[in-house]
Amino acid sequence: MMAEIEIEEAKKEDFDEIVRFQMGLADYHKRINPEYFKSGREREEQIKKWLRKFFLKKRNNRKILIAKANGKAVGFFMGSIHKAHPYCKEEKIGEISVAFIDEKFRRRGIGKMLFEEMIKWFKKRKIKLVEVIVASKNNIGISAWEKYGFREIKKTMKLNL
Amino acid sequence: MMAEIEIEEAKKEDFDEIVRFQMGLADYHKRINPEYFKSGREREEQIKKWLRKFFLKKRNNRKILIAKANGKAVGFFMGSIHKAHPYCKEEKIGEISVAFIDEKFRRRGIGKMLFEEMIKWFKKRKIKLVEVIVASKNNIGISAWEKYGFREIKKTMKLNL
Repeated sequence: MMAEIEIEEAKKEDFDEIVRFQMGLADYHKRINPEYFKSGREREEQIKKWLRKFFLKKRNNRKILIAKANGKAVGFFMGSIHKAHPYCKEEKIGEISVAFIDEKFRRRGIGKMLFEEMIKWFKKRKIKLVEVIVASKNNIGISAWEKYGFREIKKTMKLNL
Repeated sequence: MMAEIEIEEAKKEDFDEIVRFQMGLADYHKRINPEYFKSGREREEQIKKWLRKFFLKKRNNRKILIAKANGKAVGFFMGSIHKAHPYCKEEKIGEISVAFIDEKFRRRGIGKMLFEEMIKWFKKRKIKLVEVIVASKNNIGISAWEKYGFREIKKTMKLNL
């Protein structure tokens, strides 16, 4: 039997669950690129600090959506609006900063529900361009974003000193 | 006869020259990707605003280097230091935000002089990781950064609404 899925705006009470998801995401990133990423355990403090700051942004510049199955968090999307690079054709862009669905709840359209809700918000805020940054080795992420219509536009290149 | 090249920290008097270079860079970006970038003329105000803000950053978080040939600006590098993404293994990263050498002065090692001066500053500031963001269609840029040892680590993907 399918659990009933509800999409809601994250509240303070959801903070710990989102941290837990993000720690899982950090672990996944470390697995695919241990030279560049650290584990959730190693980055717990930074994740909490970053998330706290995100929660505190002005409400018309950020959105944190959470999906719940029978009241239990099973995924979330975080989006924000900020000034674009000066050469960019848009003044403001929407950014999807993190997106995650609990492995056991994938392939049920929960990501799509969250994504559509986020896009609805961007459109209401008159956003015409949405960007997402993905680790180049994160094939799961890249193909998920491609399915939603995203295409590569920029690369971040790094050099270790 | 080779002009004598000097690398110096940009001063307020260099502002207009840097704007001019950046407008040329915006034009180049529009040429390679007119769907995403606007021309220097179209983005003059945004470029000036962004550059003014960059000049005003704290001196230990930003560096603007300019190369002069017989006193005339022929290229520049802009670098800054900021907090890394929470999953990243480093707390702080150095970013090279813009780099440009006047076409007539390329292939003379001026870029390398600017780059090495920038890296020296990053090292003095204890930076272990430097990143640069490049348009995916900017092959000249990508191969220049590769020559310096940079490797792709992330992609930015975009969706037009």
